[in-house]
Amino acid sequence: MEEKEKMTLVVFSGELDKALAAFILAITGASMGMEVSMFFTFWGLNIIKKNEGRIKGEGLMRKMLGVMNRGGSKRLKLSKLNMFGLGTWMMKRLMKESNYPTIEQFITMAHQMGVRLIPCSTTCGIMGLEREAFRSEVEDLAGAAYFLNEARQSKVSLFI
Amino acid sequence: MEEKEKMTLVVFSGELDKALAAFILAITGASMGMEVSMFFTFWGLNIIKKNEGRIKGEGLMRKMLGVMNRGGSKRLKLSKLNMFGLGTWMMKRLMKESNYPTIEQFITMAHQMGVRLIPCSTTCGIMGLEREAFRSEVEDLAGAAYFLNEARQSKVSLFI
Amino acid sequence: MEEKEKMTLVVFSGELDKALAAFILAITGASMGMEVSMFFTFWGLNIIKKNEGRIKGEGLMRKMLGVMNRGGSKRLKLSKLNMFGLGTWMMKRLMKESNYPTIEQFITMAHQMGVRLIPCSTTCGIMGLEREAFRSEVEDLAGAAYFLNEARQSKVSLFI
Repeated sequence: MEEKEKMTLVVFSGELDKALAAFILAITGASMGMEVSMFFTFWGLNIIKKNEGRIKGEGLMRKMLGVMNRGGSKRLKLSKLNMFGLGTWMMKRLMKESNYPTIEQFITMAHQMGVRLIPCSTTCGIMGLEREAFRSEVEDLAGAAYFLNEARQSKVSLFI
Repeated sequence: MEEKEKMTLVVFSGELDKALAAFILAITGASMGMEVSMFFTFWGLNIIKKNEGRIKGEGLMRKMLGVMNRGGSKRLKLSKLNMFGLGTWMMKRLMKESNYPTIEQFITMAHQMGVRLIPCSTTCGIMGLEREAFRSEVEDLAGAAYFLNEARQSKVSLFI
Repeated sequence: MEEKEKMTLVVFSGELDKALAAFILAITGASMGMEVSMFFTFWGLNIIKKNEGRIKGEGLMRKMLGVMNRGGSKRLKLSKLNMFGLGTWMMKRLMKESNYPTIEQFITMAHQMGVRLIPCSTTCGIMGLEREAFRSEVEDLAGAAYFLNEARQSKVSLFI
């Protein structure tokens, strides 16, 4: 049996536009028969947080960080032209008009197509996030060594 | 005949500094004999828009987006230290003093050296941009599958 | 003797969070036996500037740029939630609590593990920076062609 070609994405950014780019690439790769892994780290973790999760965290600072950095696929903003939410709202409208999936739907699609969604254990440690902060589609936390081992076997690795 | 090594760049960002980095890499790669493709997506599309283009777009929102997100190689700003234009102006002066090409000139040079400039059809769809919104050096629109197929054959792929 | 696998990182961004991501990847790669090179360019150069360096630069504009764009591993800020320094201070506290190294310590560790720290000669030229603007762990300046030659031999290349 021939092995599948791999693609590995580091999703560092947590903005709507970068999340879109990441999921479009991931889903396209999966539909071309590639084995796709997405490693979410730093602000990228916001994309795969539960939308309705309660804010937790050991210590006052992690709680504060949890409030300021709430996350969830429905709370993402554009990196440019956010304009107090107007730009983000417009982009979502334009995507809907063009019959584009929302990030919420992209996550489900990606998961169903076998794309692996993996939170970075290192940044989860710093930010005080555990597995239960994330949606059900997400796998167990894994570290940088796990990512690099995937990346070195991949035809395409990108840092988004 | 030996095949050329490939390099593929996704240009997601539309800022002066990132555009510079992208074109320096592309032109260096081409001068080393690599076959270079640049895929412009999201804000990166601004780099290859016509400078003097009329603003078009179906519907009010795409027209508004066209105004706010005007684009064109001469309208790019720094991602840091823009300071209402002062930082950008300084960077352009410093580049001129150091005999560096402008982005305008970089685009011409890249095109003449065989670098392929390709707008992402997916984001063009969302933003309501057609081929005629872009400069003459630019190729026809192509999608994520086309990009990934190039990237998986490339020695170097970067997301900028 | 078998050749080591290579990893090459372009560090374009000069923010605390991106610098952290870059050094975590670099050190993990080195500990897995990879030969790691980090190319610092544009704002990324700030990470490897001397903390106590005097501001130099030919001409008024390069001096101004030197003041506004001071740099040094201890002056880096978060790309998000900086909140006039509060977010950055919190992140540093959280890293300390989790027994994480500072960027200062990461640079020393990376250097001791054989990670190569290389400033981009092109952007140094524009910004008027010479070798002596950088810390002792840093190698001589090298250009984009040098980077691309490393990248094309690398298993993993990322633009951060």
